[in-house]
Amino acid sequence: MHEANPKPPFNVTRASHAVMTARDLDATQAFYCDLIGFQLSARDKDAIYLRGLEERGHHSLVFRKTSGAPACERVGLRVFTDDDLEAAFDHFKRINLSPAWVEVPYQGRTLHVDDPVGTPLEFCSVMDDLPTNLQRFERYHGASPMRLDHHQIVTYDVQAATDFYLSLGFRLTEYTATDGKEELWGTWLQRKGNPHDVVYVNGRGPALHHCGIAVPEIRDIIQVCDVAGSLGFNKHFERGPGRHGIGNALFVYFRDPDGHRIELFNAHYQAIDINHTPLRWDLSDTRRSQLWGLPAPKKWFYEASNFAGKPLCDPTLKADPVTLEAFLANQF
Amino acid sequence: MHEANPKPPFNVTRASHAVMTARDLDATQAFYCDLIGFQLSARDKDAIYLRGLEERGHHSLVFRKTSGAPACERVGLRVFTDDDLEAAFDHFKRINLSPAWVEVPYQGRTLHVDDPVGTPLEFCSVMDDLPTNLQRFERYHGASPMRLDHHQIVTYDVQAATDFYLSLGFRLTEYTATDGKEELWGTWLQRKGNPHDVVYVNGRGPALHHCGIAVPEIRDIIQVCDVAGSLGFNKHFERGPGRHGIGNALFVYFRDPDGHRIELFNAHYQAIDINHTPLRWDLSDTRRSQLWGLPAPKKWFYEASNFAGKPLCDPTLKADPVTLEAFLANQF
Amino acid sequence: MHEANPKPPFNVTRASHAVMTARDLDATQAFYCDLIGFQLSARDKDAIYLRGLEERGHHSLVFRKTSGAPACERVGLRVFTDDDLEAAFDHFKRINLSPAWVEVPYQGRTLHVDDPVGTPLEFCSVMDDLPTNLQRFERYHGASPMRLDHHQIVTYDVQAATDFYLSLGFRLTEYTATDGKEELWGTWLQRKGNPHDVVYVNGRGPALHHCGIAVPEIRDIIQVCDVAGSLGFNKHFERGPGRHGIGNALFVYFRDPDGHRIELFNAHYQAIDINHTPLRWDLSDTRRSQLWGLPAPKKWFYEASNFAGKPLCDPTLKADPVTLEAFLANQF
Amino acid sequence: MHEANPKPPFNVTRASHAVMTARDLDATQAFYCDLIGFQLSARDKDAIYLRGLEERGHHSLVFRKTSGAPACERVGLRVFTDDDLEAAFDHFKRINLSPAWVEVPYQGRTLHVDDPVGTPLEFCSVMDDLPTNLQRFERYHGASPMRLDHHQIVTYDVQAATDFYLSLGFRLTEYTATDGKEELWGTWLQRKGNPHDVVYVNGRGPALHHCGIAVPEIRDIIQVCDVAGSLGFNKHFERGPGRHGIGNALFVYFRDPDGHRIELFNAHYQAIDINHTPLRWDLSDTRRSQLWGLPAPKKWFYEASNFAGKPLCDPTLKADPVTLEAFLANQF
Repeated sequence: MHEANPKPPFNVTRASHAVMTARDLDATQAFYCDLIGFQLSARDKDAIYLRGLEERGHHSLVFRKTSGAPACERVGLRVFTDDDLEAAFDHFKRINLSPAWVEVPYQGRTLHVDDPVGTPLEFCSVMDDLPTNLQRFERYHGASPMRLDHHQIVTYDVQAATDFYLSLGFRLTEYTATDGKEELWGTWLQRKGNPHDVVYVNGRGPALHHCGIAVPEIRDIIQVCDVAGSLGFNKHFERGPGRHGIGNALFVYFRDPDGHRIELFNAHYQAIDINHTPLRWDLSDTRRSQLWGLPAPKKWFYEASNFAGKPLCDPTLKADPVTLEAFLANQF
Repeated sequence: MHEANPKPPFNVTRASHAVMTARDLDATQAFYCDLIGFQLSARDKDAIYLRGLEERGHHSLVFRKTSGAPACERVGLRVFTDDDLEAAFDHFKRINLSPAWVEVPYQGRTLHVDDPVGTPLEFCSVMDDLPTNLQRFERYHGASPMRLDHHQIVTYDVQAATDFYLSLGFRLTEYTATDGKEELWGTWLQRKGNPHDVVYVNGRGPALHHCGIAVPEIRDIIQVCDVAGSLGFNKHFERGPGRHGIGNALFVYFRDPDGHRIELFNAHYQAIDINHTPLRWDLSDTRRSQLWGLPAPKKWFYEASNFAGKPLCDPTLKADPVTLEAFLANQF
Repeated sequence: MHEANPKPPFNVTRASHAVMTARDLDATQAFYCDLIGFQLSARDKDAIYLRGLEERGHHSLVFRKTSGAPACERVGLRVFTDDDLEAAFDHFKRINLSPAWVEVPYQGRTLHVDDPVGTPLEFCSVMDDLPTNLQRFERYHGASPMRLDHHQIVTYDVQAATDFYLSLGFRLTEYTATDGKEELWGTWLQRKGNPHDVVYVNGRGPALHHCGIAVPEIRDIIQVCDVAGSLGFNKHFERGPGRHGIGNALFVYFRDPDGHRIELFNAHYQAIDINHTPLRWDLSDTRRSQLWGLPAPKKWFYEASNFAGKPLCDPTLKADPVTLEAFLANQF
Repeated sequence: MHEANPKPPFNVTRASHAVMTARDLDATQAFYCDLIGFQLSARDKDAIYLRGLEERGHHSLVFRKTSGAPACERVGLRVFTDDDLEAAFDHFKRINLSPAWVEVPYQGRTLHVDDPVGTPLEFCSVMDDLPTNLQRFERYHGASPMRLDHHQIVTYDVQAATDFYLSLGFRLTEYTATDGKEELWGTWLQRKGNPHDVVYVNGRGPALHHCGIAVPEIRDIIQVCDVAGSLGFNKHFERGPGRHGIGNALFVYFRDPDGHRIELFNAHYQAIDINHTPLRWDLSDTRRSQLWGLPAPKKWFYEASNFAGKPLCDPTLKADPVTLEAFLANQF
């Protein structure tokens, strides 16, 4: 039922980058470079391009200046070669999506398409190379972000989104479903052999819930919290530290100056073997979101970055998540 | 104003141990040994005696079986020699307290007295020696608790408590006071050269708020949370992880099976020099309790372990702390 | 020149397991389970089967009892499906190797073949599933080994070995070559998107230099050293901790009771994109083996586990590595 | 036999600072500030003054420019009050040492005296206060050095040195002695309640073996090694990481640009109680210097910083320590 297509039409390799808009590039750079620890790859008057410490590709986070409301413009996926890009174009045409070739700075040939639930995607196989900072240990600071790992997206139709990515050869590692049924609330889907490249969760969407950034160790999770306190970024702190049941991430969530959310996490596992069957979590099992800590505050559930120009749809499924407010009201 | 007596009547060296009651010694042992990582020094049908991994003294936590409501019986302080015990007896007599010599298993000569705000104290200079587990690294697990570090006590009169400990040569490292006044809300007092041996905070008391247990590293704070999740101790988790502004502790708080609270923390600093003047925090500065994380839930502020047989008094000062409930209601 | 075959004849997914012989299974179990922290999946009178904490496959290390000299029997690779196994059989026939179907306990269909430089390989797509211990945090101890990551093999002909694995679609991430030439001394080859599944280095071979085991954090590297000291495994300690230039691993090397070597390491990077070109290290650059620490002792360079029944050949290239002995004699 | 004087003539509180000479202050600053992570408190054309991240006192390491051979000028100890300084002056006079009052920048009243084995000591009770960087987490880098912890000194007469410090109220925590005798090879002596303020070891002296600097965590020990590799300080790396049996320190040793040695370590224990009896290590027990790692290279045993103007004397006891060279020659 949750089977990946064994003969995908082209080879998507991984979640790669995201493009967002920001109202004040100085504030954005201060947040991502001074606090979180990203490297600045390029900046011009309209945009900043950032990469993690180990990344050789030119950028994994791009922020373009806006004078309007901040939004996410695109989430980026990498395909293996330009032949895969061609095959992707043909495939999307065939299934009646609307792919388009575009020019994007610092990237090779690039394809845009919206997925069936309205998520604006960007595919490419190459970016300009830049030196890795993997062994420039003197530059490790803040959370010492190593690389972009995954995108979590809110959608009104988790089943439809899941079917699409399974058809592209994504494999399901974990999922949340209504107790006793196969009604999907959230799906963790991957190509690169760890828990997730894209995650789709039920809610008013399409919207970007967060980008997940891999960091080396537990210490880095705490260090970035401490530095946030030192540098006065306290109000950007949203949730954590805690341990997700799903995916096993030790996490902390921050909101950037425009409200875009990032997860800093470590401790993903390997998911490569054919007999690595999807792990199911009942909706009623609160351990899926937090193995030991407090639940999330309500805003973590209900706020996300709109995709530029995409109207929001109400989700097919309705539920009251166990928020921190509810937890405190009822259990303490 | 907050000066330690330069010629104290006897030499208190440190916070040493606590004696509490518990309804189910098996449950208590499971919590402290299996989860937190304490070593069991002795157990008989009436009591269990625990020590941290580096401790050579016989016990730092004692739990005696009760069929009634659990309580704290005594907080223990160490004096340097038995001569100091004699001097302590004489001093307490002189200031009209009621010291008494008692026999306590596994301890040398032992003195009981209540401090002026009703805290039942126990003083000794020696305990039976047991082997340290400092270099038995295979026994490190859970939080890898190294040693008892301090007692935090709720009192109706912080000024009176503070004056008493200053007179015994305790030094004030940090304190909370009403903005613009020297009205004391909490005082961190020490003899051993780090931030605290005893802490007195304003509230309905006397009551034991928590015992503070030193652990080696940030990793141990997270590890014990993870193990709590694995072993099903989630409901014992109360607050954290977070960073206290006061004392700089990275902390997590658990409640034991009888509701007694422990803090697991690391990162204390050294406070030895004469010109290490007390650090003042205004009551309105929420960073004193949390540098970057969420505030504490209400129960953290209002629940504590009664001292056996000691009636509670309302505090002289009234305030609404910034609880997690208030924070969520107002700011998110 | 170092190009992976873009259309490999079948899909190898990763390094998976190793089969070795041991003279005393109790001693082997004590080393791998009590010290290193592996989980025992099965034991009978002839063999023990071990897996790392996150592994769901039945075993990643197998030790079979021998009354003779200990050796490595096979290194195991996983293919994606049983269709890939069939394709592998046909491919190996076609290139005049001698594949054979075998029955192996706890594994699905299994294929044996020797690679062109004499390394005995074992391929399968499935093993029996066992519960992961990823979220059984109370079982984390020693090095908290998560999974087998790679095999390092000594060969008399690095070029021949490398050509073979490139033809199977392995990609080269890093390599060592004679200064100014493309004469290969060592090649790091991968399928799973991190630095290595198999590594071939120049020397008297074929022989297994070590299996690389991924651990979560720096702390785990130090913790296992401490526990080795506590439990009396000091003489099993061989090299480290240190940081490899190649692959960026923070490493420590132990020898097991039969002399088989394991590397415990963390901090691998992701290697997925097509423009992730191989990183070259000159033979004269000692930073390739150690970024900051002391060089390896001579035995690290010259001792390895023979493959059972495989004669050793002298390598085509001769060199004096910078051993610890040479380093101390010359530079201190 | 190893009893501290219960009524010391004055109150020494702790090891506090060291004054050394350096040939190139820029190189010294680069080493201590850029690599190790010290804060620069002051610099003029003749000297730099450094302090650790938590220190409020003006300096714990001072380097004065020299055009000659670099040396250590003084090791500094703190007394509690200026009354203790007066008592110290009188005491040293009485026992026929030659105390002298001196003016030292950024310090209060200061007393100089040589101890009976020729170590030049400097005592003061106050220094100028500077802000602590304890909660300026954005400044933590390199090893994140928190504070100077102890001085290790090579002496020709360990017994004489030990007797002197015991007479000042120092307590012995651990010591090395000839197997079966009480002939002292090394003594760990403390006032502040952890394993050591001064350590005296047998050898050609007086000479400063190293200053010990406390760092927060294991991670910091590895991080500074990595940064040393990144920034090209490899040749300054001398020994480690490893675990000392004595004192339980996880350590790494560096040599600064003038050859002065520093130990970066964590994991000291508390030593306060009267029944904390000295721990004895036989000379033949190599675990005293390294619980699990390789022995030290010869230079670690035989090189030290001379004290300016102090002639060296041969030690009373002769031994061949187990050097790395000997270990490699004999055991591998």
